[in-house]
Amino acid sequence: MKNESEKPQDQLFKIRHSLSHLMSMAVSELYPQVGLGVGPAIDDGFYQDYDLPESISPEILPKLEKRMRELIKEDIKFEQHQMSFEEALKLYKQDPYKSEMIKDLKTAGEKNVSFYKSGFFDNLCAGPHVKSTKEIDPKAFKLTRIAGAYWRGDEKNKMLTRIYGIAFASRSDLEEYIRLQEEAEKRDHRILGQKLDLFVFSDLVGKGLPLFTEKGATIRRELERYIVDEELKRGYKHVYTPDLAKTDLYKKSGHYPYYKDTMYPVMKVDEEELILRPMTCPHHFQLYLSRPRSYKELPIRFAELAKQFRYEKSGELTGLFRVRLFCLADAHIICRPDQANDEINGALDLIEDVAMTLGLKKGVDFRYRLSLGDRSDKNSKYYKDDKAWDYAENELRKVLISRKAPFFEGQGEAAFYGPKIDIQMKDILGKENTAFTVQYDFVMPKRFDLKYIDKDGKEKEAIVIHRSSVGALERVMAFMIEKYAGAFPVWLSPVQAIVLPISEKQNKYAKEVAEALKKQNVRVEVDDRNESVGKKIREAEMQKTPYMLVVGEKEVKDGTVAVRARNQPARRSFSEGGKDLGAMKLEKFAEKIQEEIKTKSL
Amino acid sequence: MKNESEKPQDQLFKIRHSLSHLMSMAVSELYPQVGLGVGPAIDDGFYQDYDLPESISPEILPKLEKRMRELIKEDIKFEQHQMSFEEALKLYKQDPYKSEMIKDLKTAGEKNVSFYKSGFFDNLCAGPHVKSTKEIDPKAFKLTRIAGAYWRGDEKNKMLTRIYGIAFASRSDLEEYIRLQEEAEKRDHRILGQKLDLFVFSDLVGKGLPLFTEKGATIRRELERYIVDEELKRGYKHVYTPDLAKTDLYKKSGHYPYYKDTMYPVMKVDEEELILRPMTCPHHFQLYLSRPRSYKELPIRFAELAKQFRYEKSGELTGLFRVRLFCLADAHIICRPDQANDEINGALDLIEDVAMTLGLKKGVDFRYRLSLGDRSDKNSKYYKDDKAWDYAENELRKVLISRKAPFFEGQGEAAFYGPKIDIQMKDILGKENTAFTVQYDFVMPKRFDLKYIDKDGKEKEAIVIHRSSVGALERVMAFMIEKYAGAFPVWLSPVQAIVLPISEKQNKYAKEVAEALKKQNVRVEVDDRNESVGKKIREAEMQKTPYMLVVGEKEVKDGTVAVRARNQPARRSFSEGGKDLGAMKLEKFAEKIQEEIKTKSL
Repeated sequence: MKNESEKPQDQLFKIRHSLSHLMSMAVSELYPQVGLGVGPAIDDGFYQDYDLPESISPEILPKLEKRMRELIKEDIKFEQHQMSFEEALKLYKQDPYKSEMIKDLKTAGEKNVSFYKSGFFDNLCAGPHVKSTKEIDPKAFKLTRIAGAYWRGDEKNKMLTRIYGIAFASRSDLEEYIRLQEEAEKRDHRILGQKLDLFVFSDLVGKGLPLFTEKGATIRRELERYIVDEELKRGYKHVYTPDLAKTDLYKKSGHYPYYKDTMYPVMKVDEEELILRPMTCPHHFQLYLSRPRSYKELPIRFAELAKQFRYEKSGELTGLFRVRLFCLADAHIICRPDQANDEINGALDLIEDVAMTLGLKKGVDFRYRLSLGDRSDKNSKYYKDDKAWDYAENELRKVLISRKAPFFEGQGEAAFYGPKIDIQMKDILGKENTAFTVQYDFVMPKRFDLKYIDKDGKEKEAIVIHRSSVGALERVMAFMIEKYAGAFPVWLSPVQAIVLPISEKQNKYAKEVAEALKKQNVRVEVDDRNESVGKKIREAEMQKTPYMLVVGEKEVKDGTVAVRARNQPARRSFSEGGKDLGAMKLEKFAEKIQEEIKTKSL
Repeated sequence: MKNESEKPQDQLFKIRHSLSHLMSMAVSELYPQVGLGVGPAIDDGFYQDYDLPESISPEILPKLEKRMRELIKEDIKFEQHQMSFEEALKLYKQDPYKSEMIKDLKTAGEKNVSFYKSGFFDNLCAGPHVKSTKEIDPKAFKLTRIAGAYWRGDEKNKMLTRIYGIAFASRSDLEEYIRLQEEAEKRDHRILGQKLDLFVFSDLVGKGLPLFTEKGATIRRELERYIVDEELKRGYKHVYTPDLAKTDLYKKSGHYPYYKDTMYPVMKVDEEELILRPMTCPHHFQLYLSRPRSYKELPIRFAELAKQFRYEKSGELTGLFRVRLFCLADAHIICRPDQANDEINGALDLIEDVAMTLGLKKGVDFRYRLSLGDRSDKNSKYYKDDKAWDYAENELRKVLISRKAPFFEGQGEAAFYGPKIDIQMKDILGKENTAFTVQYDFVMPKRFDLKYIDKDGKEKEAIVIHRSSVGALERVMAFMIEKYAGAFPVWLSPVQAIVLPISEKQNKYAKEVAEALKKQNVRVEVDDRNESVGKKIREAEMQKTPYMLVVGEKEVKDGTVAVRARNQPARRSFSEGGKDLGAMKLEKFAEKIQEEIKTKSL
């Protein structure tokens, strides 16, 4: 029962777990000889595995739901009792699954076996459960789907029938959950990526290796240039370093032993052993070490749009979220210890400004996690130096507190070389994932001998802050696609306006309009197909094009365009969206859209 | 004698070859028992290998030169005569090298041996030579250096002493060559790359893998953005595709058998065999194939700044010219056969416009080579289809002729899948290298089934044009560094202006000036070290900073900057360079430099 988000003592857990029993009661009424596999409470509800004499179809689900609601109304009590192994085995003599579970409990050294009895149904179960079905809202659950599942997850075993349900404390919670699920499905970046022609995968290229089409590449390029320019303004030195290096480099950094399993295989090239890079830091250190450094030069902020290669198992690959090659907006700040506080603050300033530009709100879309080292870790994953850990953890904590940043602390979540601040991004369902981090590193400077000559002429050890401003471009694109359901802010939209001539007669004017806008760096297309303007508008809406410029006879005569904004407008756009804004002089429209692009309006 | 640029019948070849004999005469006067290895005429002169009883130092060279000049004045005749193998072996009984050469000639089936006698010196030699030393200008040669060379190039053999000389028809030719050599050394991008802090190499990263520092990266970023924007304007679809793919992809394209030796080793990842890409074309074909295509969509021009990986032997790596990982401004135009002519013309237009912007002149800095397939090639390197070759070669020829482009034809220089137009770039010494190409490909469309639905509803085969606008960024940077000797046009200069306060008192104003320029996107630095302004100017000159803005009391008072242009100015710059342009209002200077940046003045 690893998946539940609720703890067993929580009421919602009890409700979900009890619903699983009620579902089994309904099933066993239909199939008295049913074999019972596992039936836990999970993240959003529950499931139960059954060995049934026939295959069932989804039409059975409403029937089971109906019967479960009747049972709930009967105010059935859940009562725990103990049974000896002999009694229990006897009870389940026709059920090989329960029998196996009982034997396992015996092997594990249990004295006897816990059962929960609810009405006619007595079930091997550790609980806990609700006291009575009257604690369950009969309208706050729903059976959702049937799937196959091997007994004990082993494909050598028999395949059982798994029935899933979702369940909440109240009907409104259930409805909100269903609404969010539907929303999430509509926003799924894998589906939208295909519909909007943003990226594709190819069997011949390989798994987890997206190919960005013209439209997806446009978004990526806009993001890249924005990030680079923003970092340059803040004194970062943008560099280019190779995507691969000698294995020795990662042995020296210590990545090789820790990350070997997620690194690509070694390649022997001439007399050298090369490997694709899993991290950029050692590359930037080589730049630092290319000449002696004075205290006056610090901080040095090396930044790069750096390709990184990770050997993700094929089962873990997910659209643009988990890929085998990604491009990280990476940076390594090498500074004096007395500069660390300012530099961490600077990194968080940048992160918050970039997030704001992208429409991601601090405290709403993301919060911070202060990830600490687990000093008691037995695998000696963490570099041993309690004093350094104390100091660094406290530095990070001080920064977060002084900024009044929304954060929580996570034990044992640090990198092996120091504590970090994780940016915990929420997806459309509110689920948190670490999007990227700001790390305090006191280990690499020792490994790589990162020194500077201080004011007093003495050589001193620098410290390193690893940080990303926006994480992997692939991942932030996935976030953006889902956040905006493909209706990107105008500056990021692959096509910013589309000209729709009403009839062939306006095709020439439509092309002139497009050319004029192109010259002003607006990304514009013309839909001059021989189709009705209604159809053209519908398709442009589907493509989430921010502005549709309809041109008919009147527009040609007046030198105007009839502007229509998409249904789902940008948030600070000059339109309210989904409506005709009327005719506008072309120059006027050009001015307005350029202003939106320039200011990166949301 | 593979290296000579002159043919043996040319007079310059004869002069060089004869000088090698004269040098041997001078050497054998000093060392009568000298053993003689090979002594050919080469690219810029000649050399001869000697087995000497002692090691010699460069001080000997002027002595040898003096003696050679005396010999030249003696009007010595070169006379060919034949000798039997027995006689020849007898003459050289104390010289194991000549003896071995004679035996080789016998094995090769020669009847007897050719000798050239010049004065007291009789030498095994096939010739040809000058008739008399009076044909040699005694002031048109120079002995340049001494090196070690294994007999027959085999390190198991004895190391001989090689003396190199350069020789030309006239003294002025020699002087011009020496001047160019010195110029080339000063412009060597490897040396300038270090002096100007543009890129470094690291033993830990690996050979042939440059790391671009902030300054080098600035040039690269400017080039990248310029190329991408220029291509977007011309209707290219810029995309991003992965740097690696399944080996299957390159097996399908046919690259794997042809380019296997220069590809990196295969990596086994999960169930897949991946390999770093040597070419971008099959990736772009996967994008094309991601949905059906209509004739209306063609031409589709996929472009990408694409990383490519080549397993170059370590001995072949040269600075940024030959590397193991480079970034190509690559594109693949997929079009109907009737569009090919326009598309090739469009590609050449782009190439010529980009070259002009970079200051590379057609006919001066580069010319075209029409590279044809060798139909008689026995290794069946070329796809067999004489009709297709004829058609494609003629298409390319027609384009070049109609453009009145400077070109020559090269037999057997084509790619395996079709003929191409090579852009032959001259380096500072006038030596030509293929910088990049435009290729006509009728093979890949068959291999990848690149089809489109034509007007008549029938499926037809597209053709592919492979092209680069500017080649590998690494290589074009090397060209640019050498062409401009590091004094880049202002738009490409890593630092465009430097503010030089005369004393500490102006430091604050200097920073204000820099901030004001930064806000207007000028790359500017302040040299506020406690050094004389003379020293600051000298160092800025060394760094080839286009503009030095000296600020003293007067400038602070007037809100001006005293502008000094570097010695080697940009060609169309507003200054003539190397001189003080006098005080200028800051706004005035900002306006001028921004205009230069915007127009990419040379």
